Amino acid sequence: MMNPQSDSMIPDHPQSRVVISGIDPEIDLGRYPVKRLSGDRVTVSANVFCDGHDPLRVFLEVIFPGQKEWNRFPMEDRGNDRWSSSFLVGELGVVRFRIIAWIDLIVAFSDRIAKKAAAGHTEETDYAELIIEIQKAADRADPVSRTALEKWTERLSRESDPGIRLVLATDSSLVDLGGLFPDPVSVAHSREDRTILVERERAAVGAWYEFFPRNSAWGERRHATFQDAIKRLPEIRQMGFDVVYPGPVHPIGYGFRKGKNNAPECGPGDVGSPWAIGSDHGGHTAIHPDLGSIADFEAFVFEARSLGIEVAMELALQCSPDHPYVREHPGWFRMRPDGSIHYAENPPKKYQDIYPFDFHCADWKALWQEILGVLLFWGEKGIRLFRVDNPHTKPFAFWEWLLSTVRKTYPDMVFLSEAFTRPNVMYELAKIGFSQSYTYFTWRITKAELIDYVTELTTFPVKEFFRPNFWPNTPDILHDFLQRGGLPAFVIRLVLAATLSSSYGIFGPSYERCDATVLYEGGEEYLDSEKYEIRLWDPDPPVTIRETIARINGIRNQYPALHRNEGVQFLSIEEEFLLAYLKPGVNGTPDILVIVNLDPYNRREGLLSYAPFGSSGSFSMKNLMDGTISIWEGETHRVVLDPQMNSFLIFSREGDGKT
Amino acid sequence: MMNPQSDSMIPDHPQSRVVISGIDPEIDLGRYPVKRLSGDRVTVSANVFCDGHDPLRVFLEVIFPGQKEWNRFPMEDRGNDRWSSSFLVGELGVVRFRIIAWIDLIVAFSDRIAKKAAAGHTEETDYAELIIEIQKAADRADPVSRTALEKWTERLSRESDPGIRLVLATDSSLVDLGGLFPDPVSVAHSREDRTILVERERAAVGAWYEFFPRNSAWGERRHATFQDAIKRLPEIRQMGFDVVYPGPVHPIGYGFRKGKNNAPECGPGDVGSPWAIGSDHGGHTAIHPDLGSIADFEAFVFEARSLGIEVAMELALQCSPDHPYVREHPGWFRMRPDGSIHYAENPPKKYQDIYPFDFHCADWKALWQEILGVLLFWGEKGIRLFRVDNPHTKPFAFWEWLLSTVRKTYPDMVFLSEAFTRPNVMYELAKIGFSQSYTYFTWRITKAELIDYVTELTTFPVKEFFRPNFWPNTPDILHDFLQRGGLPAFVIRLVLAATLSSSYGIFGPSYERCDATVLYEGGEEYLDSEKYEIRLWDPDPPVTIRETIARINGIRNQYPALHRNEGVQFLSIEEEFLLAYLKPGVNGTPDILVIVNLDPYNRREGLLSYAPFGSSGSFSMKNLMDGTISIWEGETHRVVLDPQMNSFLIFSREGDGKT
Repeated sequence: MMNPQSDSMIPDHPQSRVVISGIDPEIDLGRYPVKRLSGDRVTVSANVFCDGHDPLRVFLEVIFPGQKEWNRFPMEDRGNDRWSSSFLVGELGVVRFRIIAWIDLIVAFSDRIAKKAAAGHTEETDYAELIIEIQKAADRADPVSRTALEKWTERLSRESDPGIRLVLATDSSLVDLGGLFPDPVSVAHSREDRTILVERERAAVGAWYEFFPRNSAWGERRHATFQDAIKRLPEIRQMGFDVVYPGPVHPIGYGFRKGKNNAPECGPGDVGSPWAIGSDHGGHTAIHPDLGSIADFEAFVFEARSLGIEVAMELALQCSPDHPYVREHPGWFRMRPDGSIHYAENPPKKYQDIYPFDFHCADWKALWQEILGVLLFWGEKGIRLFRVDNPHTKPFAFWEWLLSTVRKTYPDMVFLSEAFTRPNVMYELAKIGFSQSYTYFTWRITKAELIDYVTELTTFPVKEFFRPNFWPNTPDILHDFLQRGGLPAFVIRLVLAATLSSSYGIFGPSYERCDATVLYEGGEEYLDSEKYEIRLWDPDPPVTIRETIARINGIRNQYPALHRNEGVQFLSIEEEFLLAYLKPGVNGTPDILVIVNLDPYNRREGLLSYAPFGSSGSFSMKNLMDGTISIWEGETHRVVLDPQMNSFLIFSREGDGKT
Repeated sequence: MMNPQSDSMIPDHPQSRVVISGIDPEIDLGRYPVKRLSGDRVTVSANVFCDGHDPLRVFLEVIFPGQKEWNRFPMEDRGNDRWSSSFLVGELGVVRFRIIAWIDLIVAFSDRIAKKAAAGHTEETDYAELIIEIQKAADRADPVSRTALEKWTERLSRESDPGIRLVLATDSSLVDLGGLFPDPVSVAHSREDRTILVERERAAVGAWYEFFPRNSAWGERRHATFQDAIKRLPEIRQMGFDVVYPGPVHPIGYGFRKGKNNAPECGPGDVGSPWAIGSDHGGHTAIHPDLGSIADFEAFVFEARSLGIEVAMELALQCSPDHPYVREHPGWFRMRPDGSIHYAENPPKKYQDIYPFDFHCADWKALWQEILGVLLFWGEKGIRLFRVDNPHTKPFAFWEWLLSTVRKTYPDMVFLSEAFTRPNVMYELAKIGFSQSYTYFTWRITKAELIDYVTELTTFPVKEFFRPNFWPNTPDILHDFLQRGGLPAFVIRLVLAATLSSSYGIFGPSYERCDATVLYEGGEEYLDSEKYEIRLWDPDPPVTIRETIARINGIRNQYPALHRNEGVQFLSIEEEFLLAYLKPGVNGTPDILVIVNLDPYNRREGLLSYAPFGSSGSFSMKNLMDGTISIWEGETHRVVLDPQMNSFLIFSREGDGKT
């Protein structure tokens, strides 16, 4: 159809009378893909209608990854012009879909004959009109259908018994067949194809454990190796984590190396920040020699995999002044007029240990291809999971190209965006292809903050493209709540992260040991941060929440309700510090009810409203931490949580609820 | 940027780093125009951001009707990546707008110098970098700006005093100028232009009065003429109406003419339905001879205009079997195989007096042009307002072409869509260019129904394209509520229509005389409907609500709050049958408060919550029906409405509210 602003000459031929609008799911009329997991059923709906009252034929057409032909699924009329259909996605990659529709005159003419016959006034001309329309369809049909349709017209023309003729004219399978061959100019198409990025489960579901391998020689103050790190894996597995993320494992530069606690100058034994990537030992495709060889890294990946743990690799696109790229490709960095390379700065602050790439340099194509090569290099070593450092400081167009290109080789590659920045920027990165993202959860502490934020993330449009990964702490962020709240604070934030988001992670061993010592009052940096020094970890810490973590991750693994974010429902509970939410079960598995006392200091008590079977129903609830089962009755339930005893409760609603 | 599904070859050149999204106002990314009135201020907002932290330059560009060049308005950063600007629309027609943005490196480099200078470590290379960037801008600039920019670089290079040099490098007007000439490849554009249809006030605001001129010889049972109809105009003006709509005024066909009360066969004196258009006296460009000549019609239009009333003409695109088109252009209708013309039908019902056009016939271009010619014909006679009959039974593409084309000649033409059909279809007609539309108001009776429907119409997205025209009755619809509720029912529905919608209308004289006689129980057709017969109207009716109508329309004219639909706020009032709403004042004019008792039978009483100045404020409210002023205090106010006395209250809040 024409836009009012466009040339209003009369169009060349009549357009289709059918309008297709309001397609769901979609982001910005198909500009960006919506995200789904392999195995998901995708339901597509749209408003499809025409002028007047003619019957429509509506199909959803889908191209699955690797295919070239449209697969056609009939859409059904759900009333009020809303049509829908669904299909399963399996193969990883980009699925395209569109909707096509036309007016089905054969149905219209057949119906008219039926209605008039019922009212007792059959007209010969109605039959003639139907026959003409069937003949037109036959002329457009494939040979087999054509034969069937021509036979139909012959019999309709020949038949003299009015009863038999009526049956023939209204034969549903023939009417159905005839409607499949519309005049092409009368077919409406949705204007832009819509796309779905289909990823594997890890794109949405996982418990992450971040630790620095160089600090994994517990009880010894030395630079540890991957061999030491391998010894940490069984405990990580016991705690129930699915992913280990060891930070950058590449050689670290010497120039402007930071000292302990981010001191501007380093001392002789200082190991530097792993994010200052590259030295004479190599760059983004090398392993830090003090951690071991590539083979040692591969052994670490292998051992992890054999325990059911996937290794996530860091992709930090920046270089230390000693990175081989600086010598080999100085044109990939921004040169200043004085001939020096532009280091990172946030005036007046200078980060002279870091050279950012200039993604728009003259030689940018080679740079982009080189980075693609880095991903392919690690892909070849079996890595399929990347945590991408500060993607928001690199061009969106670069990421969109990089991620879509590498997925042509490795469609199972999953990317976590570490973009702690403004919401529009974080959402844009998600839209252009990052599988999941860090979030503001780290700073969402109060009941209202948590409800608002989780609601935003789990409803349209954000739920269609942005998958959260909740982190209570990171090497950069020890929140004030953790600094002050003691062990209960660590438990509270762990439970919230693990049950409010299908992906979550902690930075250990600090987290499970409730390490709460901050570099300076009012800040969020750890004292003696592992980012800048070798830290001595006691093999037998006095405080640990390892068992709680293990239990929570066990529950996460057992209950699919905790693998999905959509559908979370915050329940009414009359206490400012008590947060209660229900995660709906998937495919008949139980609903999960979580209640958390957000106050790490005080006992809180409140009345929870929860009546899944109405005011008179009763149902059995299983306390998943201790295994006890109780019968709940009525609409409200008194909850008491004392951080001295326990800060949270997790229940499953078992059975059909009718006890 | 690239889509994941598109060819993922590396792009030819780096794309702009800037993303523009979330543009408001818009419908479907610019596929349809949003609607505004001449004189409106349009505020445009968008999310504009880039990777990293570089400063942006963002402009809104607008092309007004008849112009060919973009007008540029700087957009301002409102925080959180949201930018906005505004402009006034005046000239009628289609306004196009787009957003362009780029990274302003001159601002970035100038700021860096300022920040480093403040911290005390100026670097020469920062100046050099700024100078290079200014020179690049100068090379792209117009001659005048180029001279200014080159002078700037010269002075920056030459100046030896560090203080003066700093002032020069951070001169805001020069920095501002330099940023106007970015490298074209780095400029981002919003992907599709957005459009605004600018119409005159009548497109959104008007009180309509529908009547049949042939029944305007009050007290005489004869076919009246436009000369009789002219005598009705002063009273219609006294009642405060802005528009008269006389139904179709064309010759009426003889073939299959309907009799009184829609009888399938007519008697000798029967006048037929005005919607069976066309006879040997002519078709859509002719006047029914019994009403008078074209000159008589023009006299009617002239007399109305001299009273400040605009005449709305009917556009009913269908023909009686006697229409000249049937003889002259049989190809414009659908021929059946037996050689007869397809009459309208809804099997098994037949409407043999009506031939629909076949808008997709072989000769469709001539048909479309002919209909355009009909609009231009009446346009030439001064008609600028059309009530379009059943547009939903004609192709959307036809309307989109017709309306946009005729508006090239008459940009002040306004079209009311008489589409009583499903919401998607009504909304699509609004999107493709109808100025306003009939609505479901006629059947929205209860408090909840009214609140739901008015909320839908006055909020995004519907408010951007769909302008309601509320009709309590029409020649086809005498609602059960009016049939049973007596005079209070007519007053209630009038007040609701007139104050909830900036456009509304009644079908008179039935309405003001509270005519409630239905053809058959359970139906909505008037008994002895004026559609099919000459009706005798008593010049001095025993019952009339003329004065109430006049008062209500007077209030509408006086208070701009009743000329806008957006912003209506339903107030809490603790009574199921009491509806209270506030219409916000425009440009400092008073807010209007309306309270209606929806129950035409019983006295209703309830507590209204209304405290515009908080719980301790007091303010003066003027009762606009009787002119009394009272002081309101506190947060709640008792309201009692007895249909025996009065069914509604209308107040204006006068002054600044502080008494």
